[in-house]
Amino acid sequence: MPLTRLFLDASGSAPMTSRTLDAVRAGFADGWADPRRLHAESRRAQSLVEGAREAIADALGCPAHEVAFTPSPVLAIERTIAAVHLARRGRDRILATAIERDATLYAASWIAPGRVETVAVDSLGHLELESLRAALDYPDVTLAAVQHVNHELGTAQRLASIAELTRAAEVPLVVDATASVGHLDVPDVWDALVANPADWGGPADIGVVAIRSRTRWLQAWPERSGWEAGSISVPLALAAAVALQERMEHREATATRLGALVDRIRAAAVQIPGVAVVGDPEERAPHLITLVCEGVSGEALLTRLDKEGIAVGSGSACETDSLQPSRVLGAVGAPSDGNVRLGLHPGVTDTDVDRFLDALPRAMEDVRGKPGPLLY
Amino acid sequence: MPLTRLFLDASGSAPMTSRTLDAVRAGFADGWADPRRLHAESRRAQSLVEGAREAIADALGCPAHEVAFTPSPVLAIERTIAAVHLARRGRDRILATAIERDATLYAASWIAPGRVETVAVDSLGHLELESLRAALDYPDVTLAAVQHVNHELGTAQRLASIAELTRAAEVPLVVDATASVGHLDVPDVWDALVANPADWGGPADIGVVAIRSRTRWLQAWPERSGWEAGSISVPLALAAAVALQERMEHREATATRLGALVDRIRAAAVQIPGVAVVGDPEERAPHLITLVCEGVSGEALLTRLDKEGIAVGSGSACETDSLQPSRVLGAVGAPSDGNVRLGLHPGVTDTDVDRFLDALPRAMEDVRGKPGPLLY
Repeated sequence: MPLTRLFLDASGSAPMTSRTLDAVRAGFADGWADPRRLHAESRRAQSLVEGAREAIADALGCPAHEVAFTPSPVLAIERTIAAVHLARRGRDRILATAIERDATLYAASWIAPGRVETVAVDSLGHLELESLRAALDYPDVTLAAVQHVNHELGTAQRLASIAELTRAAEVPLVVDATASVGHLDVPDVWDALVANPADWGGPADIGVVAIRSRTRWLQAWPERSGWEAGSISVPLALAAAVALQERMEHREATATRLGALVDRIRAAAVQIPGVAVVGDPEERAPHLITLVCEGVSGEALLTRLDKEGIAVGSGSACETDSLQPSRVLGAVGAPSDGNVRLGLHPGVTDTDVDRFLDALPRAMEDVRGKPGPLLY
Repeated sequence: MPLTRLFLDASGSAPMTSRTLDAVRAGFADGWADPRRLHAESRRAQSLVEGAREAIADALGCPAHEVAFTPSPVLAIERTIAAVHLARRGRDRILATAIERDATLYAASWIAPGRVETVAVDSLGHLELESLRAALDYPDVTLAAVQHVNHELGTAQRLASIAELTRAAEVPLVVDATASVGHLDVPDVWDALVANPADWGGPADIGVVAIRSRTRWLQAWPERSGWEAGSISVPLALAAAVALQERMEHREATATRLGALVDRIRAAAVQIPGVAVVGDPEERAPHLITLVCEGVSGEALLTRLDKEGIAVGSGSACETDSLQPSRVLGAVGAPSDGNVRLGLHPGVTDTDVDRFLDALPRAMEDVRGKPGPLLY
């Protein structure tokens, strides 16, 4: 591989810090036993899980008993949507923003087939409050699913205003915070919340659900399976908590620094002919930015940058195995060809940004006019 | 803690070997990226997952494309039961042995409420073939769920004879191999199989599903979620595969050695007044044995042994957080009070067994007549 690799796709996954890796090692050394058994090995595993739960609850600003782990972030979304929906007996319609993650929309369609209504967003990605108000004006709504920060746009929803409407309608607000926890404070207005440790530099394949004690839910899966679907990986839970603690300790400084780097990228990118930037430039997660490069294939561009040692995201951030055009970019009226999605982890430097900004126009030139992969 | 800890509860969890821990470390170093993206970091993660899938398929004796990972072993059971059941349109009854894991019975009752029929086992824990034949004699059966080795009894089912009946009835045989893979060869007669890496010394919180290409199944969960429920932990998959490879390399030698240790425990235990041993002494997993100690509380005994540094299992092996009497022991007509369940990992020595056999009668004496915890 040429040069040092530069990883600029830190959204939903990021390299782990040495402190988090130490937590993984400690977790496998001390937390390998099944935490549900009764002997000393299991009690130690159990106490590690409880410590992890408390640390995450602390970062979310809720009591530990409102926090549960799931064995995958998508399962956290699926079980939360289903559980809150089913508890609203006599109602059957789910509201979701038009830019929710695919996992949320699929989970909603699964539990409420044909009864999922998407609410429009404006050109910056903000939920249209008047549309939400109108959608809530019927008594059959079970919940409103709102992603705090969209992975592609970076735009942060105005959750306080949204919650005013859902509260007035007495509809639970389910917040997908899988791209905001650890990057941006989540306003304290959710009734249920889902988070993804891999997004804040923790391990993949563990999810977090927080549900207020006041929020009603019904178990929508087999008995005894629980949120954890039978078991939780103690090392992953521990590493998730340690990674979040580390992020929270430096959150403001990191946000200021990465925010400035994203501003630099934004300012430089719009100077490149054929490049546009999507999302709200002010009300946003500090570390995310998506560029839309007219007339080039996003995958070709990604592949070209990858060959130069630079990893970026493309396609829909939430459907990364797909080469379909981005549904999210379509929803805000942006072209979705040639999009390059960046997620900056805390280790990214000014020099890294220089390198990307130097490489991008050359890469665009190289791939312009070349066809992307065939879409079947 | 007094003395060195002696861990004799290696069923469903076991301390990891240094080779498996190395695989975990390598997995976190090289496989932290999301395997579904397109850049070099993701392709490397993807190739690690594929290698792990191939290694596990190899141990199971099936092609890699028939093997999938799930983010928890219980989810593997839940999704397999549901998927095979739903594909059998027009039928609705699930057969399960009376000694299946609770997770299997709960999953079955969830997808087929009121339509789960348990088939009796004999006093050694073998499925009664005549009862199975009679139960299969109706056209409404969707699947037969059979646990190859029961965690508590250690008895290995006669899967070849069972499969003759299910094949004749054209009913899919779903084998729960969560206590046998890595310990005992699984006969090549299953239509779907579920395995638990933590049971063979791999990490907790990852499950394995194998489904024959010929076996029909329908996705019983939201679109795109897949068996993996959105994502797979690459380090856990890698460590699961490496742990299984290590077990398989030494499987016969380990089985001979641990089998002899279990025989020793069995012979010594039945000499202790009030102690009985359950399960088939011949057709069994090499490493499992359950002792039933009359007139004492199983939890009190476990706690007493734990204080002496010896970790054993008690209660139902599959409901380890529960203090309820064991359903499995009830099904074979054994008393379920005072049961001590042992799982021997490959590191257990003759000296360890001496220590346990020395401690057991003293511990029984200590706790005899003392009440167990109240059952509410």
